[in-house]
Amino acid sequence: MTIITLTTDFGTEDAYVAQMKGVLCSTVSTAVRIVDLSHTLPPQDLRAAERFLATAVPTFPAGTVHLAVVDPGVGSSRAPLAVSFEGQWLVVPDNGIASAALEAGALAYALDASRINPHSVSSTFHGRDVFAPAAAALAMGRPVEAFGTRLETPVCLPRRQPMKAGGEVAGEILHVDHFGNLISNIRWTESGLAEPVEVYCGGQRIGPVRDHYAEAKEGELLALIDSQGYLEVAQRNGSAARTLGVSVGADVRVHERRV
Amino acid sequence: MTIITLTTDFGTEDAYVAQMKGVLCSTVSTAVRIVDLSHTLPPQDLRAAERFLATAVPTFPAGTVHLAVVDPGVGSSRAPLAVSFEGQWLVVPDNGIASAALEAGALAYALDASRINPHSVSSTFHGRDVFAPAAAALAMGRPVEAFGTRLETPVCLPRRQPMKAGGEVAGEILHVDHFGNLISNIRWTESGLAEPVEVYCGGQRIGPVRDHYAEAKEGELLALIDSQGYLEVAQRNGSAARTLGVSVGADVRVHERRV
Amino acid sequence: MTIITLTTDFGTEDAYVAQMKGVLCSTVSTAVRIVDLSHTLPPQDLRAAERFLATAVPTFPAGTVHLAVVDPGVGSSRAPLAVSFEGQWLVVPDNGIASAALEAGALAYALDASRINPHSVSSTFHGRDVFAPAAAALAMGRPVEAFGTRLETPVCLPRRQPMKAGGEVAGEILHVDHFGNLISNIRWTESGLAEPVEVYCGGQRIGPVRDHYAEAKEGELLALIDSQGYLEVAQRNGSAARTLGVSVGADVRVHERRV
Repeated sequence: MTIITLTTDFGTEDAYVAQMKGVLCSTVSTAVRIVDLSHTLPPQDLRAAERFLATAVPTFPAGTVHLAVVDPGVGSSRAPLAVSFEGQWLVVPDNGIASAALEAGALAYALDASRINPHSVSSTFHGRDVFAPAAAALAMGRPVEAFGTRLETPVCLPRRQPMKAGGEVAGEILHVDHFGNLISNIRWTESGLAEPVEVYCGGQRIGPVRDHYAEAKEGELLALIDSQGYLEVAQRNGSAARTLGVSVGADVRVHERRV
Repeated sequence: MTIITLTTDFGTEDAYVAQMKGVLCSTVSTAVRIVDLSHTLPPQDLRAAERFLATAVPTFPAGTVHLAVVDPGVGSSRAPLAVSFEGQWLVVPDNGIASAALEAGALAYALDASRINPHSVSSTFHGRDVFAPAAAALAMGRPVEAFGTRLETPVCLPRRQPMKAGGEVAGEILHVDHFGNLISNIRWTESGLAEPVEVYCGGQRIGPVRDHYAEAKEGELLALIDSQGYLEVAQRNGSAARTLGVSVGADVRVHERRV
Repeated sequence: MTIITLTTDFGTEDAYVAQMKGVLCSTVSTAVRIVDLSHTLPPQDLRAAERFLATAVPTFPAGTVHLAVVDPGVGSSRAPLAVSFEGQWLVVPDNGIASAALEAGALAYALDASRINPHSVSSTFHGRDVFAPAAAALAMGRPVEAFGTRLETPVCLPRRQPMKAGGEVAGEILHVDHFGNLISNIRWTESGLAEPVEVYCGGQRIGPVRDHYAEAKEGELLALIDSQGYLEVAQRNGSAARTLGVSVGADVRVHERRV
């Protein structure tokens, strides 16, 4: 079984995504499942794209090829990459959007565009002319060595780790989701913290860590551990981002409460 | 033939939908068609989700599993449901979004999350950890009795019925569509009205019921029966919502004209 | 291998697209690939829809049926069309959105809605009741003659050609893409121009034609030839539309530079 997923920041008002799908459909058999993940990623936001892929990729099975193009450097000398991660492939620009896989030890291959598609040399649309043909080739079982060579030092985005001191951890908001939930960079199991704790965000006391949204009252702010294991500040049936007036980069602090 | 459809209010800027697709793709064979219906439903709007499913589901064939998650109560004690409707399944929270099927006599099963996915007990993302695995299991032919039990009183949304008196029917706008068309709760065949009628909306006279948009002049307001059989107020090549300055909840009145 | 693509201006907040998919899924086998191209085209903008299809269709293989509904004239007497283009079909309203294929010599067939779907006669939703069943029928190999007859004079959108005089070409902006790039109606290979040139847009000097976005400095405006062969004005990692304060219809001039 083979699956190709598509992730871009292109939107769908233009035909860019449609053209990439045309290339895929022209190359692979209908036995290959083609799945849209997102075309509404924030334009040219590498951190958002990296977070998205880090969250989505592990839910897919071996045999999946993730074609993901968020590429502020299109046309520059940054290489196209194929990254081999637990039986899956990520076909991406070498700009850090596959950082999570690379940090976990995935192998990177720099792809030679001219061996993927001889007509791509003068292309201004690498999504259609380089990345989609490369993803299709991998999905059809072509060996990566046919058009790529091992790259020892692919680009990884620097991580902003939370600061720990005594019984306190200071982090920041990495992401505001569709519902206004605030997701921090504090991974609970790595925080070294033990309940009971107090969570603060944007200078406001949020309270202890709850198990579920539904433990808060309608409209109440709450802290919880999100589905990826990160500390999240939310509002029951509301937008914590709007209520607290904060966004990406806002401070989050957690300290243990003496009992 | 099996089909799984996906409907959420999650948007696609976050990886929530992508993760649900990863779970589906990890479980079902490529012979199962996976179809996006919408991920742009208004956040946590149960009435909008209910209308959407009531409109979409009947167009699908037997064998389809509709995975639909609009779930303001995530993490609370509301059960996950599987609803059996004319050979199709709806896998939804027990919050009323399957009201149309239930009113039509569909059978509901309360699902036991721990029997679907033992790891789901502490989950804050039931879409990925409960609803998607349940939909995949039904699509793969697993009997609902393996993880669900009949529920006699699933939640149904109360209906706001139009009021009839003499030759007049008073209803309200239930939905404003993408084009600004205003869809009311007045089902024409049940209204007991006979042409000729006069339609009023937002205090303004709209006129008789026409057969087609194209019977109105450019920019003219008109009333017609929409593709689901409900009275609709529209503007030819314009937005009736904007022109009339009305939205959901606005009054619509129809009265027979003496001839 | 058969593929059906879907393109609309319906958005996905309403169930219109979902209903069209239900009709397709009820008719064709799972061996037919169903692919979303876009549901976020600008509402009722025939030029945008025409550009979209002209760009997307040539990337798909023979055997593809493109179901595209942008239809300000729904319910009027405009015919539904099937357009045969290089082994592909376009199933569209007769309103010019298939102009590129028709200009290239594609054959048009006016479809008889009552022979596609006897229940469609009083329909106000032709996407579900006429176009989707017609696309499904073609995808299943039904001959177009079963429900259509040759139409010699389908509607084509008039083209606004650039003006050439001496070593100068004056055109206009046809499209602003998701990133704020400005795509003109000047097809480079047909312009008769030779480098070096100077490009002007919105009254401002942009400079020569570059090969890649990355040849400009961060924030710099530049001209280049887009992936379809048209002159484009862009800003490196920015929105040329916003920076220049221009949109569709803005003037673009290119003149040869004496050397």
